[in-house]
Amino acid sequence: MNYRMICYLSGQIIRVLGLLMLLPLLVAVIYHEPDARNAFALTAAVLVAAGTLITLKKPKTKDIYNREGMATVAFAWILVSLLGAAPYVLCGDIPSIPDAIFETASGFTTTGSTIVDNIEGMTHACLFWRSFSHFLGGMGVLILMLAIMPQNDTRMMYLVRAESAGPTAGKLTAKMSFSVRILYMIYLALTALETVLLLCGGMNFFDAITHAFSTAGTGGFSTLNNSVGGFDSAYADIVITVFMLLFSVNFTLYFLMLSDKFIQAIKNEELHVFLSIVVLSSLAIAVNIMHLYGGFFKALRYSSFQVLAFISTTGFATADFTDWPFFSQMILILLMFVGGCAGSTGGGLKVMRIILLFKTAVAEVRRVLNPRAVISVKCDGKAVDKEIVRSVSLYFVLFMLLAGTSMLILSLDGQDIGATVTAVITCLNNVGPGLSVISGGNLSCFSGWAKLLLSADMLLGRLEIYPMLVLFTMRKK
Amino acid sequence: MNYRMICYLSGQIIRVLGLLMLLPLLVAVIYHEPDARNAFALTAAVLVAAGTLITLKKPKTKDIYNREGMATVAFAWILVSLLGAAPYVLCGDIPSIPDAIFETASGFTTTGSTIVDNIEGMTHACLFWRSFSHFLGGMGVLILMLAIMPQNDTRMMYLVRAESAGPTAGKLTAKMSFSVRILYMIYLALTALETVLLLCGGMNFFDAITHAFSTAGTGGFSTLNNSVGGFDSAYADIVITVFMLLFSVNFTLYFLMLSDKFIQAIKNEELHVFLSIVVLSSLAIAVNIMHLYGGFFKALRYSSFQVLAFISTTGFATADFTDWPFFSQMILILLMFVGGCAGSTGGGLKVMRIILLFKTAVAEVRRVLNPRAVISVKCDGKAVDKEIVRSVSLYFVLFMLLAGTSMLILSLDGQDIGATVTAVITCLNNVGPGLSVISGGNLSCFSGWAKLLLSADMLLGRLEIYPMLVLFTMRKK
Repeated sequence: MNYRMICYLSGQIIRVLGLLMLLPLLVAVIYHEPDARNAFALTAAVLVAAGTLITLKKPKTKDIYNREGMATVAFAWILVSLLGAAPYVLCGDIPSIPDAIFETASGFTTTGSTIVDNIEGMTHACLFWRSFSHFLGGMGVLILMLAIMPQNDTRMMYLVRAESAGPTAGKLTAKMSFSVRILYMIYLALTALETVLLLCGGMNFFDAITHAFSTAGTGGFSTLNNSVGGFDSAYADIVITVFMLLFSVNFTLYFLMLSDKFIQAIKNEELHVFLSIVVLSSLAIAVNIMHLYGGFFKALRYSSFQVLAFISTTGFATADFTDWPFFSQMILILLMFVGGCAGSTGGGLKVMRIILLFKTAVAEVRRVLNPRAVISVKCDGKAVDKEIVRSVSLYFVLFMLLAGTSMLILSLDGQDIGATVTAVITCLNNVGPGLSVISGGNLSCFSGWAKLLLSADMLLGRLEIYPMLVLFTMRKK
Repeated sequence: MNYRMICYLSGQIIRVLGLLMLLPLLVAVIYHEPDARNAFALTAAVLVAAGTLITLKKPKTKDIYNREGMATVAFAWILVSLLGAAPYVLCGDIPSIPDAIFETASGFTTTGSTIVDNIEGMTHACLFWRSFSHFLGGMGVLILMLAIMPQNDTRMMYLVRAESAGPTAGKLTAKMSFSVRILYMIYLALTALETVLLLCGGMNFFDAITHAFSTAGTGGFSTLNNSVGGFDSAYADIVITVFMLLFSVNFTLYFLMLSDKFIQAIKNEELHVFLSIVVLSSLAIAVNIMHLYGGFFKALRYSSFQVLAFISTTGFATADFTDWPFFSQMILILLMFVGGCAGSTGGGLKVMRIILLFKTAVAEVRRVLNPRAVISVKCDGKAVDKEIVRSVSLYFVLFMLLAGTSMLILSLDGQDIGATVTAVITCLNNVGPGLSVISGGNLSCFSGWAKLLLSADMLLGRLEIYPMLVLFTMRKK
């Protein structure tokens, strides 16, 4: 293990985090919020100073491999969740430390569960920081750093792989640094486009950019107590619905479209399955709830918004879905597990894994029925590598074991079955809301230790378990 | 596919089922229950006649292989669930046909969920038939037939393998027919012993033998509305607790003990894990509920009974566990998935599969952390065959996909989340009770089609999915 290099990269992350706090600092200055201004200024100064000090001493060797890559990513995410919480506590918006850590972890992991009861009572600077953390966490904290300060290619590969979601992570172009920058450009462009479209609908600039940030990271923090439903605008609903969909698609497909490989992008099997699930679920729920909204099309507006909010793991809300029939709620629960496509900012198991799980299960059934047949799992017309098939089913096993253990521990906190079970599901899949008392995405009912457990679940879910395990099984040799 | 042979074997099953109904007929005669007497007499006569007619024409070739074995078992279980329901309907104890099918499937699959609201109002003959169906289903309907009418060894092997639970099924002795008879002897001896012990505690013969039958099959039907709690006897609680444990242990271990291989039996890893789970869960729940019972030992009596009722998938109850803290309820929910040891009458995933899932997950984590290391999964000190490891994780994937799909469909019936989710879990794992409105194991709140769906889940769970799939994907070639 190259501990020096992990330390050095962490120093860089700390410095970048400090610099990023200049943006909420600016918001605090604009809105004349002195407490928030001081909090962000102090934190930014300390972080930049600390980061610079740590990076002064350069490591002898800059080589890192798979294990170092994973450990760096896991360590960086814990650091960011802890240090990013400081301004909330310092400015008094979230005085309790476990609460502030939960809120920051929920921000960076793009979960979007909150512990703030009166969101509209927060300072603009903190509201901005919440949504901005979604934006940063969506693509990845280290990927941002690498976009700004590229490293050598092998080193980047290990870091990107550890931070990216989905069963596989590839390069778009021969050079990793170029790929990372292109992805970030697409990400920025889509976010800017959403902001402009929301502005066109009459939303003010602050609400527009914060909601665009939250959609981009598929996070879910809103500036209103009633989430997007608070705007009560069909236009805003539709714009956000479309962008939740766009941000759940594998970004590689946008790159292919930009490179004139439109047909190749359109033929993507994961995209087809994702769109089919979205359309079928939206229609099923619309039919199931149309009696509540007095018409199919109004019902479809609410159902498609909620379906995309859950499958993209954004977690915004425009309707109180706990009033919906339980069939609709059950669809939403199952969508949480699906999540976005691999290579998007969406959480969950990812559509790709669900496809592979289904196909593997079908192949296994066929194999049991015809023991002599040779059956391979195919995707996009090509046979999928056996190692990937194996690792996907084992990831699922690991995920369910983790979910079961978390539910068991969380049940000690004494909430009801709906809240306990869905809190774990929503945090591990980085969604935001659950059922029962946590349907609004507000998890303040849980006690301090439970919030830290759920924060750990959010980090494990965002980084897809392994990097965290590497970090906690490191031994000095 | 040898359809003639499947038909011939089914005819034999029908005849055996008819003959077995002579026992409840005897009960009806003893207790002077004319409606029940006529119902069982008529059904028995029709089944024996039909079975004899079907078996008159012997198939040209008696060869059967894996697929035929599975199809026969699946078909036989569906037949038994449908035909065994006739007396309930004919005597008027359960007038609705879907209800009667549910009750019979719940009996033979040893689930023990019921749709009868006033159990104490049923005839003795039907009460006996309910518990007796647990006893028959516990070891397997075909295994009983094979114990009575042995077939050639290969043929038996395929049938036994398709009906036995757990990741592997082996022979105890060189001859299959001998193995099957020994297992049935052990099963009968343990059931007789439990009956005698319950009689010693002052229970009447009818209650003693029906409860022994229900314990033996790890089913859960009781003759009282309040299940075993209705006796309010610490002695009965303890006897039944011990026998729920004994029937959840791999019967092969009893055979080893009888063959003077005591040490080998005691060293069994699955047994150790099973006992550890039982002891730890009982202690954890006892501590969690002791404030409700005013003392640790009284709490331990109720907690150990309930832990064994859930892990053995028997589903008896002596206390209203919905009053227990949610932590205790969560433990019970997770125990439903564990189930008994492989080669016992207990349902669930089986302890062996849970061990293999955990070990495989740990091995996968180690493999990701050290890609160059060669890591194998070991059990009882020996490396487990890679095929078994793979099939266990895929069985888990299949099981969870089936559970998710069932929950989604069942949610259309409009019950709350606790009832819907745990109804599927309890039926797939053949346990009996769930949470919320179904905590007493009474699923009468569901509508007709939902009961048939849950009956299918019970059959899929009991036969471990594959045989049912073979039956429904059969094609004539």
